[in-house]
Amino acid sequence: MRLFAERGYHATSMRDIAAELDLQGGSLYAHTASKEDLLWQAVSRAADEFVRRAAEATAAEPDPIPRLHRLVLSHVDYMTAARDNAIVFHHEWRFLSPERRERVAGRRREYEAYFRQAIEDGARTGAFRVSDPKVATLAVLSLVNWLYQWYRPEGVLSPAEIGGQLNGLVDGALGVAPQTERRS
Amino acid sequence: MRLFAERGYHATSMRDIAAELDLQGGSLYAHTASKEDLLWQAVSRAADEFVRRAAEATAAEPDPIPRLHRLVLSHVDYMTAARDNAIVFHHEWRFLSPERRERVAGRRREYEAYFRQAIEDGARTGAFRVSDPKVATLAVLSLVNWLYQWYRPEGVLSPAEIGGQLNGLVDGALGVAPQTERRS
Repeated sequence: MRLFAERGYHATSMRDIAAELDLQGGSLYAHTASKEDLLWQAVSRAADEFVRRAAEATAAEPDPIPRLHRLVLSHVDYMTAARDNAIVFHHEWRFLSPERRERVAGRRREYEAYFRQAIEDGARTGAFRVSDPKVATLAVLSLVNWLYQWYRPEGVLSPAEIGGQLNGLVDGALGVAPQTERRS
Repeated sequence: MRLFAERGYHATSMRDIAAELDLQGGSLYAHTASKEDLLWQAVSRAADEFVRRAAEATAAEPDPIPRLHRLVLSHVDYMTAARDNAIVFHHEWRFLSPERRERVAGRRREYEAYFRQAIEDGARTGAFRVSDPKVATLAVLSLVNWLYQWYRPEGVLSPAEIGGQLNGLVDGALGVAPQTERRS
């Protein structure tokens, strides 16, 4: 995961991976059939983890505002704890074979649907004031996904502080009260 | 630019590039010393274009709100008109040599400073209500940068409509009036 994240999939050889694992070059093939299989395992694991956490974060939370907050915090938590996985999930997945890429795209849509559902529910109840829930969903996902580009573990803000600030910005963007008088 | 964007730098060979340009493999070396030189040219050109447009968008606009709006629209405009360049600029630049990568990072900071300046100016005048201008800047950049992941030319929204919607979300996130009573 780390090699794929740092160097990119194509610039990482099976020999590099074997060396990192203290294996002989050839013996890695006893564990995996190809480099693409390793990428597939890495990407699938990250996708599973994103979806599992979203399901957990939203379970038994009908109120759209705290539900969206939890999704943001859960995303920030995983992104900051497992940055390599996030990079591989966001960048390198496009080098999978078309069939596997399509499966990842499906998992990605499944994950994004948690965000979309919270935003649509909130738009319906009036908790959020959004003109276009689809664009609003993409905006929230942009905020949390781009994090892997700028997050540094040695930075002054903790992941929880970053999550809190992002949620404040999300609330503003979605017109959460006390700004609900905005378009009334 | 297109090959680097679609396949990634490492998966694109000089032979691929020559074929795309209808050149003999060897004769491409009459035009360029190495594949990395081509990447450098591509990334530098995109960086120059981002910075040039930001300078143009902000010239003679002292008011922070319209200044930030123009920066967002200018970014969306370039991102949607030259998506390959944006992908190469955001993804593939990390495969440059360390010295060139450092120069790109400098250009990137120069570009981001236009956004930061508008947000800091607005925070000072009270046009924006932000608790942390640095995080707010990263949030706005996240919104506009992630666009290359989801923008599709065949989609229902035009670039101008997307830019307008993003600016509405940015206004909300930064507490632009009529929500200025928010934290008062």
